[in-house]
Amino acid sequence: MVAPGIQPEPQPLRSIWLDEADGEVKVIDQRRLPHELIIRPLTTVDDVIHAISTMVVRGAPLIGVTAAYGMVLAARHAAAHDLGIDYLENEARRLQAARPTAVNLGWAVNRVLQALAAEPGVRERVVQSRNAAAAIVGEEVENCRKIGDHGSAIIEAISRGRNGKTVHVLTHCNAGWLACVQYGTATAPIYAAAERGIDLHVWVDETRPLNQGARLTAWELGRCGVRHTVITDNAGGHLMQRGQVDLVIVGSDRTTSGGDVANKIGTYLKALAARDNGIPFYVALPSSTFDWDLTDGGRDIPIEERDPDEVRYAEGWDGTGQRRVRLCPEQSPAANFAFDVTPARLVTGLITERGTCRATARDIGRLFPDKIRRRDRRAEE
Amino acid sequence: MVAPGIQPEPQPLRSIWLDEADGEVKVIDQRRLPHELIIRPLTTVDDVIHAISTMVVRGAPLIGVTAAYGMVLAARHAAAHDLGIDYLENEARRLQAARPTAVNLGWAVNRVLQALAAEPGVRERVVQSRNAAAAIVGEEVENCRKIGDHGSAIIEAISRGRNGKTVHVLTHCNAGWLACVQYGTATAPIYAAAERGIDLHVWVDETRPLNQGARLTAWELGRCGVRHTVITDNAGGHLMQRGQVDLVIVGSDRTTSGGDVANKIGTYLKALAARDNGIPFYVALPSSTFDWDLTDGGRDIPIEERDPDEVRYAEGWDGTGQRRVRLCPEQSPAANFAFDVTPARLVTGLITERGTCRATARDIGRLFPDKIRRRDRRAEE
Repeated sequence: MVAPGIQPEPQPLRSIWLDEADGEVKVIDQRRLPHELIIRPLTTVDDVIHAISTMVVRGAPLIGVTAAYGMVLAARHAAAHDLGIDYLENEARRLQAARPTAVNLGWAVNRVLQALAAEPGVRERVVQSRNAAAAIVGEEVENCRKIGDHGSAIIEAISRGRNGKTVHVLTHCNAGWLACVQYGTATAPIYAAAERGIDLHVWVDETRPLNQGARLTAWELGRCGVRHTVITDNAGGHLMQRGQVDLVIVGSDRTTSGGDVANKIGTYLKALAARDNGIPFYVALPSSTFDWDLTDGGRDIPIEERDPDEVRYAEGWDGTGQRRVRLCPEQSPAANFAFDVTPARLVTGLITERGTCRATARDIGRLFPDKIRRRDRRAEE
Repeated sequence: MVAPGIQPEPQPLRSIWLDEADGEVKVIDQRRLPHELIIRPLTTVDDVIHAISTMVVRGAPLIGVTAAYGMVLAARHAAAHDLGIDYLENEARRLQAARPTAVNLGWAVNRVLQALAAEPGVRERVVQSRNAAAAIVGEEVENCRKIGDHGSAIIEAISRGRNGKTVHVLTHCNAGWLACVQYGTATAPIYAAAERGIDLHVWVDETRPLNQGARLTAWELGRCGVRHTVITDNAGGHLMQRGQVDLVIVGSDRTTSGGDVANKIGTYLKALAARDNGIPFYVALPSSTFDWDLTDGGRDIPIEERDPDEVRYAEGWDGTGQRRVRLCPEQSPAANFAFDVTPARLVTGLITERGTCRATARDIGRLFPDKIRRRDRRAEE
């Protein structure tokens, strides 16, 4: 099913694209999957902010890319109305405020803004913004592909250790290609390992309140023919106790330079259970997800609080359409924290585009010496 | 709203009762709360088995009491058709198989059966069964009241330590009066502390897949005017990291003589988070919930697997009625483990009708020397 007037590719291979035909940014409406595949056009900065804040698009890398395209729309509007850098800076600020936790949002917007600031011509800025956004998209895709390579080596090693018996991976939320542009972060190693013929099975945490696991990760894995089972967020600890999980891979919305990981609420509980049962717990992330300036995740990472009705209600398919049903008494209040922070001590390793490292300031610094040097220079200024 | 032909008390004070007017067992249909208060009559052993297995009634103490009333119905049927002890033994076995994890089920049925075996008269057995069931009910209610007394002392001490500032309690699933007959187990200390004027607030885990927290615990607390907030099962760890939980109290479906606790799936994850953040984690249980013969909970307690559709769907109120909506893709399979086992090492203390003790074989044995002696005698025979 498709929104009126929109002709999507029947099987879009990307979660977002710039439509050359009409100049619109096109995104998959992730609130409607897996029940309906609807493509939404984004034509203004307001459209982009709305899509990010209402989670039409979600996932740290995709939020960054969508916001970068938002800056393309801003540059186009500026060219049409002869608006200067002040306007663009203001639009950048508005985009960055759309959601607080994902660091990729600020990173991507700033990168396009810097390219625009370096170019005085109002019309030329449109071209610059498109080039900058395209560069971000290209890098994110390439980074996810590399994360898949590095991560699948870990899965292959576990498979060898099990003499080829099924490797059971647990993942939380959706850090798949829907959260990125292609491949995904947490799912990239899974897809890469499956392609290489490793016998795999994925436990998919449903991930309340918005069920990105049950809705999106299950849909992605099913489309790719990867064997999977949906479980409640409560079940992972029990499965680990029973020896039915061989490794955990999750994504991240912001990771400190010391390896503390902000990710979807509930990630911390799975990390605790993995530690208690001696199961490796990996976080897959492109370097754009690092917040190089932060060291203490629990203290420094802002945690978004969303509408309590996302907790009070569940949304799903009733046979004829998407409906929401209230789960609790009408008068009962609810609270809705969107993320938690898993301390570095619980993380076995970080899988990045440059390879895998331990979640310590030292090992992260070894893999990304350029980023650390740049941060330290900024601090000195 | 009430089922046709049934006149409930407008505010039943118990989750189950024997209706003297018509001889029927009456229960609140817990699948319909908080949206509808429906009273169901149970008139045959099959009715009782169905009510237990489909979770019209749930919660370890209530399952035991309902099954005890099932034996009353069996004794009545035996008297009407002149059936002997073989029939009653067979009905007892059928009742005990209705759900595998709660130990109270077997305990209560055996207790009534023993009273019946000691009485040769077929008609007299009806009276004996009623007396035995009434004794179980009376003890369960009294035990819950005492658990409330002992547990509220813990809450009062925390309140004093906080100079009267709000005490934040987190609970998982429903171990309230709906799970028992009156007062509840995990909620009994909360109700008792609230009555004593302690400033309290309860974080209510929604408890997927069947949402007993969001539906039942929130409803109970709201009716009693206890301040509470519904959260997803994913959120508790984050709240503990942020210092917003002062203690955790949960119930139990079966506890070993060494203090391993089987309770609703997800309990183990909260126990891990409590330990990681130095927060006391208490389990409230009547002694009928101990399985004195077991020592290793992870190995010995059978964990029920229920219909995967409970995970694939969520049930709630859509404004006109109770509906279920599918959360995941139509083709995606799911798994549904109903309980997990929290190892004794993660449990700060057990709150029982005889007082509070540490979750060790030694401390449990000190509080229940009679039970341990009886077990050891059985083992010698």
